[in-house]
Amino acid sequence: MAARVLGLGQCCWDRIGLVRDWPGVDSKTELLRLVEQGGGPVATALVVLARLGISVQFCGRIGCDTEGRLISDDLQAEGVDCSLLQRDARGRSQTAMIIAEQGRGRRNVFWQRRQGDGIQVDERVETAIASAEILLLDDLDAEAALAAARIARAAGTLTVLDGGSLRPHSRELLPLIDHLVVSERFARQWLPGAEPEAALMDLARSGGQVTVTLGERGCLSLVEGQPVRVPAFPVDAVDTTGCGDVFHAGYVYGLLQEWPLVKILEFASACAALKARGPGGRFAPRRIDEVFDFLARHAPDDTWSHAED
Amino acid sequence: MAARVLGLGQCCWDRIGLVRDWPGVDSKTELLRLVEQGGGPVATALVVLARLGISVQFCGRIGCDTEGRLISDDLQAEGVDCSLLQRDARGRSQTAMIIAEQGRGRRNVFWQRRQGDGIQVDERVETAIASAEILLLDDLDAEAALAAARIARAAGTLTVLDGGSLRPHSRELLPLIDHLVVSERFARQWLPGAEPEAALMDLARSGGQVTVTLGERGCLSLVEGQPVRVPAFPVDAVDTTGCGDVFHAGYVYGLLQEWPLVKILEFASACAALKARGPGGRFAPRRIDEVFDFLARHAPDDTWSHAED
Repeated sequence: MAARVLGLGQCCWDRIGLVRDWPGVDSKTELLRLVEQGGGPVATALVVLARLGISVQFCGRIGCDTEGRLISDDLQAEGVDCSLLQRDARGRSQTAMIIAEQGRGRRNVFWQRRQGDGIQVDERVETAIASAEILLLDDLDAEAALAAARIARAAGTLTVLDGGSLRPHSRELLPLIDHLVVSERFARQWLPGAEPEAALMDLARSGGQVTVTLGERGCLSLVEGQPVRVPAFPVDAVDTTGCGDVFHAGYVYGLLQEWPLVKILEFASACAALKARGPGGRFAPRRIDEVFDFLARHAPDDTWSHAED
Repeated sequence: MAARVLGLGQCCWDRIGLVRDWPGVDSKTELLRLVEQGGGPVATALVVLARLGISVQFCGRIGCDTEGRLISDDLQAEGVDCSLLQRDARGRSQTAMIIAEQGRGRRNVFWQRRQGDGIQVDERVETAIASAEILLLDDLDAEAALAAARIARAAGTLTVLDGGSLRPHSRELLPLIDHLVVSERFARQWLPGAEPEAALMDLARSGGQVTVTLGERGCLSLVEGQPVRVPAFPVDAVDTTGCGDVFHAGYVYGLLQEWPLVKILEFASACAALKARGPGGRFAPRRIDEVFDFLARHAPDDTWSHAED
């Protein structure tokens, strides 16, 4: 059976150490806790979607190393279809060491680039894209993202892009994207010196629905041509790693429900807030009722009070 | 056949990421390189001694986890006798994530404590201590270090202590130590507010030969009752992780050769300098001729010019 969401992008293995405070240079710090987890924008979004009950398939690339095995085992254990996961015989998987300040939500990511060939968009991938309802992309493998977006556009599959940073091929990719959900950094790189609102308006000229995520300040989107800010839910943040990835999962979930935009953004914000309360990019949510419970308790109106019924 | 040096202390698995500069909080940094290596003061010293051609045996403790397997495999591959390595069925091995600034020698260590029982000093360990010429200790497992030092003293085995920080049991342990090689931190904790020279004189009252290592400023020791500073060899430091551990290996090597003290300290400094030129605690030295070559080229006098003959 075809997956409802096909994700194409990066996957990695993260080791996240929690500290009380970010230390000065040249010091030794005992970790409060060390957590190992899979990461990567698209891979993490798919894991969360699988937990929310959506059938998902991942197309990405790993090396034949310890971390590659950990990435693959973990995705499969989470219920992500990995039949399109590609392996470089001599390549190296992407890994990261992350130091996160417990309670402040600040973190430093030290990452090692994957070594090997790019993601191959072959006939099997093409078939999977055409059969899916949504193609979720990050823009970390330019060639593969462009090829996949073109296939999706031709096949009528909805495209969602997680834009982390503006890249050379972003301008080529954007017209192929139906839902563009970008970081504040992306927006600021798009229109240097301008406020996110201005970048949002300008990005919308590519034809897609545009949202800019602003971390603890919520997110900005365009409703009937006007910028609207949906606030974030206040939480005691333990680690913000992956909050963006999880927001994308919530966004895609909402699209599949055909909810109105503001409802989608509230749901996505709730997913990100639940995530921020624990370490690692995949801390939460674990189940769909966890998100609805959170929304019923914290959403400003009563839209969500019986959402799970 | 009994090992000439028995080491008792900590072992761990280090993941060392090299960066150009230490980043500010809340940033993402691509690693120049990621290196994985075994670590721990005594374990690293034994690895280097094995490379220098000395028979060594390690008594320490690991968990039944991936890192425990990596630690044990690595020690054995380096030629360290691991027949006294102890495993906690449900414990966790000690691990560290280290971020090192390439070229500056500064580094931040983020470590996770081992979980499990203390090192057991049983009859097999007692026999090994009595059969060895030198017992090398760190002071990270107080009870085991004290028990081992008492056995060594009774059996006439020479004791060398790597003192990293002053600990509650340090005052009990010191009188059992023949060669005390401590960090500058240890010295400053021993006599707060005093210069290392004063701490050195005071530490010597415990009866052992005392040396204080001062990083790039070399080391201080007592020769005929007077503090003498042996300068470090200038190097372009890539990563100073493990320089102290490697210094101890050189010190123990020199003791086994029955060299005079200053010669021992020069040799130990050369080992530490070679180590500083690469990432990870066990980067160098790899062979005894590497140390002699370095000394022949860099030592201030011609003591070492034909040392390898």
